[in-house]
Amino acid sequence: MAGFVDEEGARYGTSYLGSRTFAGFFEDRWLERRDDGGVTLREALGAFGGSVDGIAGCRRNPEDLIGYYEVHIEQGPMLESEDLPLGVVTSIAGQTGATVTFSGTAGHAGTVLMSLRRDALTAAAEWILDVEALARATAGLVATVGGMSLDPGVSNVIPGRVELTLDLRHAEDAVRTRAGAVLRRHADAIAGSRGVTVEWSSRETPAVTLSAELSERLAAAIAASGRPVVRLPSGAGHDAAILSTITEAAMLFVRCAGGVSHNPAESVTVDDVAAAIDVTIRFLELLG
Amino acid sequence: MAGFVDEEGARYGTSYLGSRTFAGFFEDRWLERRDDGGVTLREALGAFGGSVDGIAGCRRNPEDLIGYYEVHIEQGPMLESEDLPLGVVTSIAGQTGATVTFSGTAGHAGTVLMSLRRDALTAAAEWILDVEALARATAGLVATVGGMSLDPGVSNVIPGRVELTLDLRHAEDAVRTRAGAVLRRHADAIAGSRGVTVEWSSRETPAVTLSAELSERLAAAIAASGRPVVRLPSGAGHDAAILSTITEAAMLFVRCAGGVSHNPAESVTVDDVAAAIDVTIRFLELLG
Repeated sequence: MAGFVDEEGARYGTSYLGSRTFAGFFEDRWLERRDDGGVTLREALGAFGGSVDGIAGCRRNPEDLIGYYEVHIEQGPMLESEDLPLGVVTSIAGQTGATVTFSGTAGHAGTVLMSLRRDALTAAAEWILDVEALARATAGLVATVGGMSLDPGVSNVIPGRVELTLDLRHAEDAVRTRAGAVLRRHADAIAGSRGVTVEWSSRETPAVTLSAELSERLAAAIAASGRPVVRLPSGAGHDAAILSTITEAAMLFVRCAGGVSHNPAESVTVDDVAAAIDVTIRFLELLG
Repeated sequence: MAGFVDEEGARYGTSYLGSRTFAGFFEDRWLERRDDGGVTLREALGAFGGSVDGIAGCRRNPEDLIGYYEVHIEQGPMLESEDLPLGVVTSIAGQTGATVTFSGTAGHAGTVLMSLRRDALTAAAEWILDVEALARATAGLVATVGGMSLDPGVSNVIPGRVELTLDLRHAEDAVRTRAGAVLRRHADAIAGSRGVTVEWSSRETPAVTLSAELSERLAAAIAASGRPVVRLPSGAGHDAAILSTITEAAMLFVRCAGGVSHNPAESVTVDDVAAAIDVTIRFLELLG
């Protein structure tokens, strides 16, 4: 049994910090990163009673492991909508994170005629709706524009520049990559038709397919407990994505209220946790 | 001849400060406003060698005035596109300034299915395109979404709340008011169809029609100078809007390069300024 620290990387931008260390991917340069208060990761580790010298010893030899199993709340609404407490996770979605910048010409909101405008925001708005339409039309794809900044961003000036973020996820890398290419082409076409320009920079994180063999045993454990077996992908990242690179990994999702996560309203029921424990015991027995 | 200070109100948010004082609309409470450095208007007036005691004396008696005449760059592209140096201003556009807030549900960008989202930003994007389409379809109307803020506004969270600004201007109040009502109804419809809510607050500034009699004489002066007479509305505000409340007002627009204004690139030619002086002398002679 393992509990991994700081999967989110909230303090040092080091996501999956615990599981990366366990899997042997700790990078020494992270030790010099500083939190918002100026404290380095090295200092924080010492203040917590830990030691840099101990990091190497955290690494596990893959040959000593029979697999990795993680129980997590779904962070989505699918189990709740199917009225089921548990589900077998098939994969962890890959992710494209892009920054898209439309540049037009700032101008006086009262004097520049509509026909002469090169408005970066209306171009961005057209593209945002394209992003939504493509994701709605592509099974399993989720696409989100979550961040946006306008320059100059004041009420009486036509926006000259709009920078926005795109978060694109799918269980299959090919679907996600194709969608990214389509959206980039759409951005170019919208910019061209509106006399503005667009820049695009993106980072890609591949999807992880969980172990077919372990997932089969997990499904058998659910069936043995008398519950229907449902399989679903994970849109969020998990420590299992890191562990899957050194050993076979499986995950069990537990229903959460309203699909709400990363929020004080996040909750699961005691009954659903009991069901997860019941299935986990059966799963471990099947492995024995 | 008068030169009015601070038409923009850049330092104290007191637009038309000079002309309002001249017209008798100075408000004593403005004296306690502070600039970004904490200096009050009262203190700034003293540091400039002025005195609060002198304010009342700035007020002019309407009966002592025969009219108000202002020469200004167009701040728009119409004269340039018609290859003319000068134009008679018919009116100063009225303005609707609105704050529009779409509220949906923030959620995890990786786990909330597209069909279950209540995304405040995609609702806002749909409305922004509606604003643009209505303005393009309505002669003389300009509409701008210039400011926008997202909550939480981070890349991996579906926006739960988007606040944006609307700037709507037209020479005729009825056209502007009707457009505002249409856009408000559209915002409601978009919100309704997307399961989000929308709030709307707005401030209305009526349009000003300049003096028909003075404008006729100004047109005659242009004609007498051998130039074609063109009439055009002003999308921007001017001191003439304030003076028009106490006396008959007229305005002459001078062509500016590319319609650019409020920008270091703002420029007029020496020839066009000479034409404006020539026409102004003829106009004053016609009044004499």
